Amino acid sequence: MQATQKKSPVCVGLDPLLEKLPLHLSKDPAGVLAFNKGIIDAVKNIAACIKPQLAYYELLGWEGMKVFWETCSYAKDQNLLVIADGKRNDIGPTASAYAEAYLYEGSPVDSLTVNPYLGSDGITPFIEQCTKTEKGIFVLIKTSNPSSGELQDLPTGDECVHEHIAQLTESWGMHHLGGSNLSCVGAVIGATYPEELKYLRTLMPHIPFLIPGYGTQGGTAQNVKYGFIPNGTGAIVNASRSIIYASSGKDWKEAATKAAEKMAEEIKGALKNTSH
Amino acid sequence: MQATQKKSPVCVGLDPLLEKLPLHLSKDPAGVLAFNKGIIDAVKNIAACIKPQLAYYELLGWEGMKVFWETCSYAKDQNLLVIADGKRNDIGPTASAYAEAYLYEGSPVDSLTVNPYLGSDGITPFIEQCTKTEKGIFVLIKTSNPSSGELQDLPTGDECVHEHIAQLTESWGMHHLGGSNLSCVGAVIGATYPEELKYLRTLMPHIPFLIPGYGTQGGTAQNVKYGFIPNGTGAIVNASRSIIYASSGKDWKEAATKAAEKMAEEIKGALKNTSH
Repeated sequence: MQATQKKSPVCVGLDPLLEKLPLHLSKDPAGVLAFNKGIIDAVKNIAACIKPQLAYYELLGWEGMKVFWETCSYAKDQNLLVIADGKRNDIGPTASAYAEAYLYEGSPVDSLTVNPYLGSDGITPFIEQCTKTEKGIFVLIKTSNPSSGELQDLPTGDECVHEHIAQLTESWGMHHLGGSNLSCVGAVIGATYPEELKYLRTLMPHIPFLIPGYGTQGGTAQNVKYGFIPNGTGAIVNASRSIIYASSGKDWKEAATKAAEKMAEEIKGALKNTSH
Repeated sequence: MQATQKKSPVCVGLDPLLEKLPLHLSKDPAGVLAFNKGIIDAVKNIAACIKPQLAYYELLGWEGMKVFWETCSYAKDQNLLVIADGKRNDIGPTASAYAEAYLYEGSPVDSLTVNPYLGSDGITPFIEQCTKTEKGIFVLIKTSNPSSGELQDLPTGDECVHEHIAQLTESWGMHHLGGSNLSCVGAVIGATYPEELKYLRTLMPHIPFLIPGYGTQGGTAQNVKYGFIPNGTGAIVNASRSIIYASSGKDWKEAATKAAEKMAEEIKGALKNTSH
């Protein structure tokens, strides 16, 4: 998929926790589905995609996974792209099973996040699946959390670990370019690390970026602008909690719409006011 | 959990693929559950634990996740330890959700595999959950696949990446020791890398090892013996395909029993014939 087909760079993370659902919704899988549908309706004209975080569905057992798939199908029907945030990873034959599980022909999931700790033969089965079904992956490069540097920033010769993975990702991706000259292989780089984002854009010219950590985690529009390519595409920016929990009252949908609009305006503004 | 409470070091990986089920079983989630129960019955007197690989359950959608949980409960009832092989990883709040999803109080899952790419704050929520519910995790250190070295063996100063993660894992684990002086924090090291296994045992004296890659992937008893501590405990060795697919005919259960017995004997023999 080309995650940047829609003009908007906004991605809304669907990370539903029972205790944070709006008061009138039931605190069970049915309540989560109603919540997700409400958020999707509230943001569908503003966002390009939604990113359900699998942990929050697995937390509800198999009933939660049912809600995950129902959520993805509903989003697809509303013409939104769907990124399953699972950070999956395993050895070759098992990576193939994960790839087929989420990126099968006709799946409502367009793209899956993956973790590169196992190296090429843990990633290529996902890429092979993507080329068959026109789906995508996003490889973790530099994550948004405070201690991401413990492994990802370790110096190794002239570069650090995450720069090395970035170069591998560019090499995996450049053989699988779409019409826009962007690959089906993407990269995850946290909004909380703007300097890294800027440099990583130069290392990965063909790679679409998924930039999480906007809003509650501290990422701003000024932080994320360097993840885009000069024509203002090539990146999608995710916010979860700052949009979906903008209000827990009766106005939760309106509050989500407003928070998403504000984020879209902020990013548009930052991209305008830069020579970038 | 203490994965080494039982005398046997054998772990059987439950990686069910529909197309590989014995001929008389239905090629659907019900067939998978029947297969898993058959394998569990066949190995329960030989193995200490089973390791369902989550990818193969997610591949069957939410019905597959239902079978995953039913399989874990059945194994628990048969007095087997259960390691959920999910290689889960995420930033703090989401890592907490994964931890609670699998390692809740009373869960049939005893332990979960996790991926360390995100650093300490992606791991500590799992450890906090383990201390509350007496469960365990196994952190990926050096995986069994051919290209594991691309990231894991990158040199970084005096050590390589996986040695650095090993030291972090020992430091995370040594504050959470059980009665046997082994931690609730374990490590995954592939049977296909015996030299690394030997050295990593010296770096992580308090850490139980989960050693996958025995059998089909090429690991042998001579390879894995260095993962044990001198009293012959401290490690569990996993084989999946060589046991569960030992025969696709009517004798599949008997063949699985024999393959597990052979593996147990081989490891026992290797541990006996070493000054280790």
